[in-house]
Amino acid sequence: MFETAEVGRSLTKEEYEAGLPGIRAGLVQAQLALKQSVSPVIVVIHGVDGAGKGQVVHRLNEWLDPRGVETHAFWQLSDEDLERPLFFRFWRAMPSRGRIGLMFGAWYADVMRDRLSRRVKGAAYDNALRRIAFFERMLVEDGAVIVKLWFHLSRKAQRQRLKDLKDRPLTHWRVVPEDWKSGKVYRRFVEAGELAIRRTDAAGAPWFLIESEDERYRDLTAAKVLLRAMRQGLGGPPVKRKRGVGAVVPERIHRGAITLLDQVDLEKSLSADRYEKELERWQARLCRLAWKAQKKGRSTVMVFEGWDAAGKGSAIRRVTAALDARLYRVVPVIAPSDEEKAHHYLWRFWRQLPRAGRITIFDRSWYGRVLVERVEEFATGGEWMRSYREINDFEQQLAEHGMVVVKFWLHIDREEQLKRFRKREKVAYKRHKITDEDWRNRERWEAYKEAVNDMVSRTSTGHAPWTIIPGNNKKFARVEVLKTVCGRLKEVL
Amino acid sequence: MFETAEVGRSLTKEEYEAGLPGIRAGLVQAQLALKQSVSPVIVVIHGVDGAGKGQVVHRLNEWLDPRGVETHAFWQLSDEDLERPLFFRFWRAMPSRGRIGLMFGAWYADVMRDRLSRRVKGAAYDNALRRIAFFERMLVEDGAVIVKLWFHLSRKAQRQRLKDLKDRPLTHWRVVPEDWKSGKVYRRFVEAGELAIRRTDAAGAPWFLIESEDERYRDLTAAKVLLRAMRQGLGGPPVKRKRGVGAVVPERIHRGAITLLDQVDLEKSLSADRYEKELERWQARLCRLAWKAQKKGRSTVMVFEGWDAAGKGSAIRRVTAALDARLYRVVPVIAPSDEEKAHHYLWRFWRQLPRAGRITIFDRSWYGRVLVERVEEFATGGEWMRSYREINDFEQQLAEHGMVVVKFWLHIDREEQLKRFRKREKVAYKRHKITDEDWRNRERWEAYKEAVNDMVSRTSTGHAPWTIIPGNNKKFARVEVLKTVCGRLKEVL
Repeated sequence: MFETAEVGRSLTKEEYEAGLPGIRAGLVQAQLALKQSVSPVIVVIHGVDGAGKGQVVHRLNEWLDPRGVETHAFWQLSDEDLERPLFFRFWRAMPSRGRIGLMFGAWYADVMRDRLSRRVKGAAYDNALRRIAFFERMLVEDGAVIVKLWFHLSRKAQRQRLKDLKDRPLTHWRVVPEDWKSGKVYRRFVEAGELAIRRTDAAGAPWFLIESEDERYRDLTAAKVLLRAMRQGLGGPPVKRKRGVGAVVPERIHRGAITLLDQVDLEKSLSADRYEKELERWQARLCRLAWKAQKKGRSTVMVFEGWDAAGKGSAIRRVTAALDARLYRVVPVIAPSDEEKAHHYLWRFWRQLPRAGRITIFDRSWYGRVLVERVEEFATGGEWMRSYREINDFEQQLAEHGMVVVKFWLHIDREEQLKRFRKREKVAYKRHKITDEDWRNRERWEAYKEAVNDMVSRTSTGHAPWTIIPGNNKKFARVEVLKTVCGRLKEVL
Repeated sequence: MFETAEVGRSLTKEEYEAGLPGIRAGLVQAQLALKQSVSPVIVVIHGVDGAGKGQVVHRLNEWLDPRGVETHAFWQLSDEDLERPLFFRFWRAMPSRGRIGLMFGAWYADVMRDRLSRRVKGAAYDNALRRIAFFERMLVEDGAVIVKLWFHLSRKAQRQRLKDLKDRPLTHWRVVPEDWKSGKVYRRFVEAGELAIRRTDAAGAPWFLIESEDERYRDLTAAKVLLRAMRQGLGGPPVKRKRGVGAVVPERIHRGAITLLDQVDLEKSLSADRYEKELERWQARLCRLAWKAQKKGRSTVMVFEGWDAAGKGSAIRRVTAALDARLYRVVPVIAPSDEEKAHHYLWRFWRQLPRAGRITIFDRSWYGRVLVERVEEFATGGEWMRSYREINDFEQQLAEHGMVVVKFWLHIDREEQLKRFRKREKVAYKRHKITDEDWRNRERWEAYKEAVNDMVSRTSTGHAPWTIIPGNNKKFARVEVLKTVCGRLKEVL
């Protein structure tokens, strides 16, 4: 494959200078269009050492309006990065809509390095590349323009280049990796690179091989490729999204039929006496387990979803009452900020992931996508339908990193909800909890029920199972939540 | 002082239950008002161990609407925190306008601990407390409501409490600091606390001593104090801000008189030949110094300010061309995001500070406050006037942490600017750089000149001096910038 980038392409100074102004003007124009769009532009910069990746980035930064560009190298990671799944660092660096991110190595560098050092076997490498392909497709479907540039040098040209770098004053100080002295490393790198390119070359996120022996050709070609990708990706007026078009969605298949939620035994309850005893017992256990997890660096993510007035808040308080305030954080999922809106919908949850040994409790969560956004039609059928897989992949990453994922659906029936709404309206400090929206949601009970059933069946996985809590009796529900959390923690500790 | 909190205050169960509903309703009401306001509410939670600070926070979290509250403990700091000045961690945790932050120990815990362990001497402790007082006043002037709660126990009561904690199942696992076994630690802590309270008790950020032997009294009193502070702090309609009212500002004192800027020799220039040689020489030196700084963990903050078209961008590019892309980050200061607007104006700069050994280059900076915001009257006289001191304190913190702060004002005269504006309009890829705003700013040259003079004279400090760069000759200016940066780096390495 790489032979196509070893044919001696070059530009004379005249050709370069003739081509440059048009491309610069084009880039700046494209940036203006980008600013108006909902797309971030992600430029992956990768290839063999010595090919001049740093130089290309300098050039692009010069030619682009710097106010809309950011450069990221994933180097010298902080403990905050290392205590989260691998992709945390990339989510953190993600450019927001309207901006360009130049990413050195991006999500390729780590896996390729591990492959080269043989820490990762063939199948695992393949698997990692497939995850990358999925990740990129997810971003593209969310509007991102992804351009991937592979800067290539033949073995001979690389040797010459690394020698040259050492002799020039400005580059002399650059760290030239020792490994490259051996031809074996070059061969292995190129092999791993070829597989990476093959597995992740996609319509929305194509790779471009750029021959890098001639600097002028290399730089101008990189700029041209970026410009073309931006023009294509941002071309035309934004398509008016229609709900469900192009997506087969499971709606109304189950409507009316008996479902999982119907089978929940809502009669279960606990006497006040038993409750006090059980509560104390499980809180004490949770307290011990949380400190143990802290010491072992195991973090926990809890998700609380449920009907309005199902008792999420009070169940969460029974959990946090057992925890040292330094160990946990409750994240109530409210309207996203503009920084959050300027990213993929999972971004705001990635940024809240706990550090090693800590706990994040989400009061509502990423499941809003397949609940309220589905039912209220804020998301199109294609959007919420594909998010099941996005969510499963997200939670799998948490689990693979060693995080404990516990998810609750607090279930009550319509009559119980009505009773609670009425009761809340009578208590001054609870009245604010009942809004018109809650009454409206209540009207759509059946649609929500269908969404909940789909959600539970599509996202209950071995590493992140759903627990449906019968909630008509609050005491029973609270103890059940505590028991479940303790059970999951105990399994892994 | 603490005797006032050793008088045996307590509440019966009946008193507690009679008082609670009103306070809960009040808190939720106050939160609604808070949401509409421009104020963050900062609750500092401090006091002797065993007083039940964690319990109080649990209670407040229960009584408040959790969607508007966040709890922060400054514990187990990450390297990302440690590589920045002490206050970085607090800026990161700052609640945004309309929200409440419950802060364990806040900015008091660290300095008090250092004082207790004798790592900090009396004068340094005093100094740290004065910085805290300044910091809090700055937040209050920006609209924050600060409530500081000190939970007190007599030595005897503390002893009993720590013993009790050990015997109860839920608290048994809590880490009870060994130190407290000795009465000496108690005395020293209380002494350091008394000084902290005296030095930082201020109208906008008062301390409240809360006797903590009786849990009911303690919790309800904390809630009452918070409620009252919120009502007072948020009471009344927002005051229409008038420019300059209540602030003596230095305007028009110098207008017309000869100034620092007039004395800049704009004739200085460099031939093309000399330029090439000097450029290469200083870039090579900068490259070496940057790697050296990286190895030593010294970070650098560069600020580029200057007239429109003075050549900031091209000077920055000559600097970055010498740097490895992994070492630096250019931050173009554009319109703030809504998350940024929801904080004090310095917040967005704190979040961009470099990690150890790295470089952040600000293309425009926090000086916008005393330049464009002053001239265009986006900030009131009081606001921009007090920001000189805020900025000086900010930069001092960077310097004390070991960061190198380099600040440039790129200076050109009006004729040169006009020439450059006209030239830019002729080049397709530069045309976007000239906007109507630039022409408008040009009309206000004299006002800007006055602001620049004030800025330079008020914020040029030993640890963060301004360098005025004669910019009519671009080549001269670029080399001068490189030389200055190298000089400052060399001093400290």
